[in-house]
Amino acid sequence: MNTTRRTLTCAMLMFTSMACLPAKVSGDEGMYLFNDLPANQLKERYQFEPSGDWADHLRLSSVRFNSGGSGSFISSDGLVLTNHHVASDTLHKLSTPEMNLIENGYLAKTLDQELKAPDLELNQLVSIEDVTARVKAGVKEDASDEDAVKQRRAIISTIEKESFEQTGLRSDVVTLYGGAKYHLYCYKKYTDVRLVWAPETEAAFFGGDADNFEYPRYNLDATIMRVYEEGKPAKLEHFLSWNKNPLSEGELVFVSGNPGRTQRIFTVEALEYLRDERIPYVLDFLRRKEILMQQFGLEGTEQARRARDELFGIQNARKAYSGMLGGLQDPQTIAQKTQRQEKLLAELKKNPELQHLASAWTEIEEIQDVKREMIDRSVSLRSTLFGLALQTVLLAGEDAKANELRLREFTDSSRESLMQELLSTAPIYRDLELAKLSDEISRLIISRGADDELVQKILDGKAPRERAAALIEGTNLDSVEYRKETIDGGQAAIDSSDDAMIRLALLIEPEYRSVREQNEAIEERERQAYAQVAEAITAMEGTSGYPDATFTLRLAFGTVKGYVEDGKMIKPTTNFAGAFQHAASHKGQADFDLPQSWMKAKDTIDLQTQLNFVCTADIIGGNSGSPVVDRNGELVGLIFDGNIQSLTSDYLYSDEQSRAVSVSGVGILEALRSIYNAGELADSIGK
Amino acid sequence: MNTTRRTLTCAMLMFTSMACLPAKVSGDEGMYLFNDLPANQLKERYQFEPSGDWADHLRLSSVRFNSGGSGSFISSDGLVLTNHHVASDTLHKLSTPEMNLIENGYLAKTLDQELKAPDLELNQLVSIEDVTARVKAGVKEDASDEDAVKQRRAIISTIEKESFEQTGLRSDVVTLYGGAKYHLYCYKKYTDVRLVWAPETEAAFFGGDADNFEYPRYNLDATIMRVYEEGKPAKLEHFLSWNKNPLSEGELVFVSGNPGRTQRIFTVEALEYLRDERIPYVLDFLRRKEILMQQFGLEGTEQARRARDELFGIQNARKAYSGMLGGLQDPQTIAQKTQRQEKLLAELKKNPELQHLASAWTEIEEIQDVKREMIDRSVSLRSTLFGLALQTVLLAGEDAKANELRLREFTDSSRESLMQELLSTAPIYRDLELAKLSDEISRLIISRGADDELVQKILDGKAPRERAAALIEGTNLDSVEYRKETIDGGQAAIDSSDDAMIRLALLIEPEYRSVREQNEAIEERERQAYAQVAEAITAMEGTSGYPDATFTLRLAFGTVKGYVEDGKMIKPTTNFAGAFQHAASHKGQADFDLPQSWMKAKDTIDLQTQLNFVCTADIIGGNSGSPVVDRNGELVGLIFDGNIQSLTSDYLYSDEQSRAVSVSGVGILEALRSIYNAGELADSIGK
Repeated sequence: MNTTRRTLTCAMLMFTSMACLPAKVSGDEGMYLFNDLPANQLKERYQFEPSGDWADHLRLSSVRFNSGGSGSFISSDGLVLTNHHVASDTLHKLSTPEMNLIENGYLAKTLDQELKAPDLELNQLVSIEDVTARVKAGVKEDASDEDAVKQRRAIISTIEKESFEQTGLRSDVVTLYGGAKYHLYCYKKYTDVRLVWAPETEAAFFGGDADNFEYPRYNLDATIMRVYEEGKPAKLEHFLSWNKNPLSEGELVFVSGNPGRTQRIFTVEALEYLRDERIPYVLDFLRRKEILMQQFGLEGTEQARRARDELFGIQNARKAYSGMLGGLQDPQTIAQKTQRQEKLLAELKKNPELQHLASAWTEIEEIQDVKREMIDRSVSLRSTLFGLALQTVLLAGEDAKANELRLREFTDSSRESLMQELLSTAPIYRDLELAKLSDEISRLIISRGADDELVQKILDGKAPRERAAALIEGTNLDSVEYRKETIDGGQAAIDSSDDAMIRLALLIEPEYRSVREQNEAIEERERQAYAQVAEAITAMEGTSGYPDATFTLRLAFGTVKGYVEDGKMIKPTTNFAGAFQHAASHKGQADFDLPQSWMKAKDTIDLQTQLNFVCTADIIGGNSGSPVVDRNGELVGLIFDGNIQSLTSDYLYSDEQSRAVSVSGVGILEALRSIYNAGELADSIGK
Repeated sequence: MNTTRRTLTCAMLMFTSMACLPAKVSGDEGMYLFNDLPANQLKERYQFEPSGDWADHLRLSSVRFNSGGSGSFISSDGLVLTNHHVASDTLHKLSTPEMNLIENGYLAKTLDQELKAPDLELNQLVSIEDVTARVKAGVKEDASDEDAVKQRRAIISTIEKESFEQTGLRSDVVTLYGGAKYHLYCYKKYTDVRLVWAPETEAAFFGGDADNFEYPRYNLDATIMRVYEEGKPAKLEHFLSWNKNPLSEGELVFVSGNPGRTQRIFTVEALEYLRDERIPYVLDFLRRKEILMQQFGLEGTEQARRARDELFGIQNARKAYSGMLGGLQDPQTIAQKTQRQEKLLAELKKNPELQHLASAWTEIEEIQDVKREMIDRSVSLRSTLFGLALQTVLLAGEDAKANELRLREFTDSSRESLMQELLSTAPIYRDLELAKLSDEISRLIISRGADDELVQKILDGKAPRERAAALIEGTNLDSVEYRKETIDGGQAAIDSSDDAMIRLALLIEPEYRSVREQNEAIEERERQAYAQVAEAITAMEGTSGYPDATFTLRLAFGTVKGYVEDGKMIKPTTNFAGAFQHAASHKGQADFDLPQSWMKAKDTIDLQTQLNFVCTADIIGGNSGSPVVDRNGELVGLIFDGNIQSLTSDYLYSDEQSRAVSVSGVGILEALRSIYNAGELADSIGK
């Protein structure tokens, strides 16, 4: 249900799901598990030995956004800091033609002005437990791929359900090291989240798509929300206090957030599949959707407002994938990976006890061929109304099954989160839905062929746009009440429904289930193969390291550090004065106007205040909104982007040029006080 | 070398080349040959019998633009009327950062202020001769496809060369009715063409991409140029006088212009190939280039200016292809075509003398499979500098051959036009070239695969952008003098050249020639098959009709007529008052601001003057800039667009909703006088 997200949110997650062990760790590389922190590296490289309390406090002060980003608690009375672009999904849903929060920003002067997000869920990671043995015991050794999927799903559902019933916490079993380990993560959920302050997009996304993934930057990509419990601001034990001093080059910093996905363990053949098939396919898809959203926005200013948040997310993903492809198309990248792989395999084959693991590489190579065939088989039409219909239809079917047999998102322990999505009060725009659904039907004709039986049934003798119009005309799913009734009515309500979108979802459901089952079987094969690869790498190279990213909480570290680009040294920090200069030197260009609030406040802002900075910490999409803290665990910054050189981090990290980009904590405070007339809010932060 | 063009210019031509006989003619359908005018239809439907002089005068007053559009002579001293978007290629090439003609418009107050276009060529059709017998005699009956291509090319080159040497005229043999007929077209060429007047883009492209292919419209999509001979304004015998009265609904009008391509004879299987493979492929390509150009434009206002003309052309083509695909994805379209085809084939098979022709349909079906395989084989990197390098390299090779053995564009009779292109003084922007070439190399990696030997040689161990940068750094081909030297130096200069782009072209040349040869062999097979289809259709349905469009001069006819859209009647004409209302009702939207000149002149303009109108004449891309004349042969309008319903005209024409959109002649005169302070120019028109 989540729309695509900008910059470092999880947009990149939408197309793949594997997540594995990294290659040999070097420099400031690494996204570490909170129950397996890099004590040795920190001690050796930085003479820093974090205490257990230090780590626990940081973990419990960190939150994950279900909309695809990260955040942190920053006051005892529930304040949460994240990026504007992480909050923008909520800002968009709360906006109306008359009150455009994304464009104009917002400030609640009192608690009762704080605006409740329609479907936001924040997760605070309370505990981690290793359940590897139990999961592995639940899957029979001689099971087929299809059976293994089901057995693993069953044992995981059971573990999650037991935990949920025991603790009342959201309980997720996370697959780590490509299936070598399974950890049970328990989260406290916050589902009453309200908007406190957001700047204008002109400030938050200053420089627009042109400056995205670039540096130096001057962005106030920050928003403050507040979590509530029982209708009152939540009382928090763990929250970050703020360092009131600017950062200097060389300072050690830590990032605590939820990197979405990396694929650093990928074999050469898997990377080649990404380079030759998957990423080109995804880029064609993204460009198609980018143009679609642009065209829709041309119909009027209100249409532009409706399309804007999604458009930004698409543009961001397109730029990120282009960077990834650029790296993979560099012959040196594959040469480097090939060299290492060949060396490893050669050594492996000499080792009588490990040589059986070499078959994993062949297996992965074969899996790529299957993926190639499956690349265009999806029948899930990307439209909010169809998504709701399909979820509703699937829900009825899944509810008839025992918990451990259900698809992942329909288990008992996931129910509350699912309902939060299905019954969201976020507006649904029928004109935008029409544009999206027409395009999706047209795309389906191309991907499955016009003669495909299912396609012909979907079309019902009509052209794509005509059919989409009839479907949208014939559905009531944009009414929350109607959705609730239908869900409550269960299978009987679904079967007797004459809602056009529900009928369409029923038509598509069998094929959706079939394709999903096939994809999950492929993932299972891949998981098993990468578990062997992980075993081989650990045995041969002695990596302890960290597992590939899984959109779960990780700790990264690094230093505030400039870098050389095209022979020029880029300084690690920027300030408000730079923002005004940047605006002046790009006068007349779209997205380079600072907002009126900044122009008016220019004389009162301390222009030397630090605004953005870069550090070497290893981050990726999903880390958006992550707090950056210093040795004392005090907040110094807010991750919002990576530079263009970091876009290969998905499969290859290097701290030579790759940098994480943050808003400075001091910059946020200065903006609140000097620009946004929010001194009280600023005063309450960190307390 | 021509960049893509907006609206009804020939952008759509870039991807296919077949051009054939149409289906059964109905209503105001038809793009007729000037040597085979639809006398019966005009007499029956409109009681109009044009004299030979009427037709000759109209033909000799019409011109074709080599940049991909049409135009007309409108004064005895060389004035030429065309669209702003046809002229924009020239406007772009004449612009500098300081003098942005596309954005700001232009008016030459005196002859010496008229600006010479760097590489424009206008063609006036002087004569048509049927050379079918001679061409057919030149191809042996038992020749293989490859040999047939060569033999046909040889006889055509010979005919063209003889004609050129006899007459001094540009001489082109045109393939008509899918290869059933060949006509020799002789053109007088004008290569000294100067800019006289152009409005601002805000007026010419008012409503931008949002209004493109829409109606009602309010666009002043007009530009006036002048042809020169021997440094002086050409003295013209044939030019159009202007009707000073506005058009009324129901009036009979004629369009004389150069429709680029239609494919109305296409078999069902050929249309399915378009729907399933070709158009989706082209749309992916166009969206890729659209985003590329947009991204380049984000780098700064000057970059935006450099990318703008090409971006507009791409956006236009993308919208046109989307409309074409939409029609083909309507199950009714294919059902209708299938029904007719099945009926025809059934009847054909009953006829002992004609039944052998039925094999053509099977042949065409098989050809689609070959095309499917060839779809992504092109190695021609779309960048101006690479294009120049490849042309230069090919030229040296072709010059070593006898005239009749050369590739089409390198024959003696084409030499002057080729040189006009190769030695154009239009600026070449290295930053834009870098963006384009990087993208093309990246695209080639995807289409041919990273392991492809040629791709590896092209990359030379570097990433696409790095390699493109080295190529552009290492070439001098942006210098006209250098190009001239290299061309004059012939094969020896090429062989010893250390210019990086020339070296690249030499590397790619063999594969380019091979792919081209394969494509031409496929076209030959298709031509032969469609000649049989044409024969069958003519025999069974008795169609005399017109051949599919071939970017040669045609006459279309129709009436000024509104149409019903979504149950609402759309009136056929608009006026200046409507333009101001349209601007007001789209306030705040991009591309809906009228220029300052219009706002200033609002009180002096006669707001009731007709501005745009629609008629039922059958037009397509390439018709842009075509004059619209009345029964008296007097100019009443200037074609600039088709409505969205006309986008299926490529393969299916219907005058129910499909409309050609024109600027009114009276609107142009009013604008010149009341807005552009160009009364003298207005007075000289038609005289």
